[in-house]
Amino acid sequence: MEPQAAERNNGGVAEGNGGFLESFRALLRPAVDRLGGLAAKLARTARDDPRRVAHSLKVGLALTLVSVLYYVTPLFNGWGDSTIWAIITVVFVMEFTVGATLSKGLYRALATLVGVSLAVGAHLVAELGGEKGEPILLAVFVFLVASAATFARCIPEVKARYDYGVLIFKLTFAMVAVSSYRVEDPIEFAHERITTMAVGVAICLLTTVLVFPVWASEDLHSLAAGNLDKLAQFLEGMESECFVETSSCENLEGKAFLRVYKSVLNSKIREDSLSNFARWEPIHRKFGFRHPWKQYQELGTLCRQCASSMEALASCVIILKRSQYPAANPELCLKIGAACAAMSSHSARALRGLSLTVRTMTAPSPANSDMSAATKAASDFRAAFSEDGALLQAMHVAVVASLLSGIVVQIKRITESTNNLARLARFKKPERSRSAVVINVED
Amino acid sequence: MEPQAAERNNGGVAEGNGGFLESFRALLRPAVDRLGGLAAKLARTARDDPRRVAHSLKVGLALTLVSVLYYVTPLFNGWGDSTIWAIITVVFVMEFTVGATLSKGLYRALATLVGVSLAVGAHLVAELGGEKGEPILLAVFVFLVASAATFARCIPEVKARYDYGVLIFKLTFAMVAVSSYRVEDPIEFAHERITTMAVGVAICLLTTVLVFPVWASEDLHSLAAGNLDKLAQFLEGMESECFVETSSCENLEGKAFLRVYKSVLNSKIREDSLSNFARWEPIHRKFGFRHPWKQYQELGTLCRQCASSMEALASCVIILKRSQYPAANPELCLKIGAACAAMSSHSARALRGLSLTVRTMTAPSPANSDMSAATKAASDFRAAFSEDGALLQAMHVAVVASLLSGIVVQIKRITESTNNLARLARFKKPERSRSAVVINVED
Repeated sequence: MEPQAAERNNGGVAEGNGGFLESFRALLRPAVDRLGGLAAKLARTARDDPRRVAHSLKVGLALTLVSVLYYVTPLFNGWGDSTIWAIITVVFVMEFTVGATLSKGLYRALATLVGVSLAVGAHLVAELGGEKGEPILLAVFVFLVASAATFARCIPEVKARYDYGVLIFKLTFAMVAVSSYRVEDPIEFAHERITTMAVGVAICLLTTVLVFPVWASEDLHSLAAGNLDKLAQFLEGMESECFVETSSCENLEGKAFLRVYKSVLNSKIREDSLSNFARWEPIHRKFGFRHPWKQYQELGTLCRQCASSMEALASCVIILKRSQYPAANPELCLKIGAACAAMSSHSARALRGLSLTVRTMTAPSPANSDMSAATKAASDFRAAFSEDGALLQAMHVAVVASLLSGIVVQIKRITESTNNLARLARFKKPERSRSAVVINVED
Repeated sequence: MEPQAAERNNGGVAEGNGGFLESFRALLRPAVDRLGGLAAKLARTARDDPRRVAHSLKVGLALTLVSVLYYVTPLFNGWGDSTIWAIITVVFVMEFTVGATLSKGLYRALATLVGVSLAVGAHLVAELGGEKGEPILLAVFVFLVASAATFARCIPEVKARYDYGVLIFKLTFAMVAVSSYRVEDPIEFAHERITTMAVGVAICLLTTVLVFPVWASEDLHSLAAGNLDKLAQFLEGMESECFVETSSCENLEGKAFLRVYKSVLNSKIREDSLSNFARWEPIHRKFGFRHPWKQYQELGTLCRQCASSMEALASCVIILKRSQYPAANPELCLKIGAACAAMSSHSARALRGLSLTVRTMTAPSPANSDMSAATKAASDFRAAFSEDGALLQAMHVAVVASLLSGIVVQIKRITESTNNLARLARFKKPERSRSAVVINVED
């Protein structure tokens, strides 16, 4: 390469050099593009939630603090190699919110205590087996306890709440029981393990509470207010895009408001974990002792049910707007449309009011005029159309049939996808008649 | 207590003793009941998926195998205290399926290698700082690397796939870098750490593949077939409970078939993780090299879309059956009902056929008569009612209004729940006029 480059430099300097640089740049471009993409992604991650940056620096700080135990000789001489457990504890216990760190730290402490005690007990029993019996007894204990703890983690209730605790218990028991065979004083070893773990947990808690604390309770609170806002946004969109006389109703499927309820539907996992952690947090700001965390989950469940009805409504509206028949009964349609507009605008305003109540933690005014207006619009609609009840009955039947014919189209797509799978995965050719195969239905 | 009990034994033996036993039993009952409940839960956990028992025993076996490294003196003398890393690796790497264990083991190996190399590099640089500079430089490196790794775990794409790897990298770097300050030969220490980790990973892989292997690919495959069956079950229920002339249509909300699609809606997380792991698994049974794993996710997405339409349909049917108006146009209703029965029965049979195709891995017969019958029923319905198009239009509008009035009822419940929250959490009384507060809407 070098002689070639030199040659070019001697010859057509401008052109040759340009060409070389050009090809060099072309070679680098994908790498530069990827670096740019990475930088953009990092910036977006930080911008979406700046607390992430603070959290990262906090983890760095906690690890640096715990590593001081190693650098200061008198501290190190106290624990020796066991100091490593303080570092391991910090890496595993530091979590994003105060509640998560606190619960993980306390579960780790409890699990370590139980694991160490049981392991020391196992060691004392195994010693009775003599020189040959000891490893055999220890192996049996490790097998039994590890199997039992693993099975406990398979129980859904345990998995949901105590997964981490059981894992640490299993780890501690196995480590202390097995190494007790080689360690001169297993009780001293167990004591060091517990002390260093406690130091690690203490450093995590201090860092997480004192430096830029992130509270799970506040995230849970603003999740509740955000869900209410999203439901309101859907109804506002419905009103302005579908029920107002001037609305065009075109390209409904692309509209943002028809997707906004979806994130409400998927909020359960986040809500459950946040309310789980919020219970652990000490009193702070407006969140006192015995704050009604359960109530947030109840409100969340109702919001998700409402979002699920909104999904049904969205499907119907999309079908309705797609089938552009001439309006046969324009008077009826207008009447129903006005009722819809009233119901959605009043409901949306009621929801915005609730969201404001939650966000500002201010008690709602006792007379909620928006909600009563929405309820009145709904009962008016029902009263007006009970006369046309028979017509309404026929209407529902027809809509059900329309939805069903939509499902048939989707099943056709599923069939094509399954056929693709059969082709790509080279399913075997059918050998016997289908009716001879027993279908085994799992529920 | 003792003198009293003795007195009773002397006096009315039968009665006193019975009374004592009775109260003793009453005291024990809650404990016995709880034990019984626990036993029932354990039995259910094992019965629901017997492979859980096998998995638990496998973890016990792997830990027992790895603990042999401790009991056999020549093996132990090779590694010394570092042997503990083999145990820790087994506890953290053993997972339920072969694919999960394999991917976790390989990520752990890779992360350990990178972490150890970087830490040894940091140690060599820090040594240049002299006696006083070394701990300071090490602390700075630990702070920087730990912060960067923690921030990387906040990036959604990294969190989804490499969370465990980055965690292990951070742990390994911190441990090796910090302890290099106290260890005589950090390179020997790093070497021991890598070797013991490799032994742990090897034991996990051997146990998981050779003893009762649980394949993620098979779970993914039967998840796909199960989803198809559940969609079919919904349509079968619809046909027999709603569209057959003799159907009673009472208490629809309690029916099991109206909930069966819900588990399909929630299958995405499990499907994603299984297909992630299935890619890692070696060739086994009918799952060859380059098996089309992506196709399962595509099929799953279509099934979830279909389930979501079924939810909309279920809402409409429930509303329809609740509003029991006298049938005004029985002829029309019957006609539509027959179309619905035809669409759902043919679609259900088509879905059962697809599920059988996937379950038995047998290519579907090219002429899928059920699917074409369902498509024909749907297009017949559309053709028959395009004449009554205007009526249909009015129908849709009315159904939309009905759904909306259902949403109003739900929002009323949300309002009550928010009011409860405000009362229980003692929200402050409103001080200023509402209109003065700026609503801050997050999306």
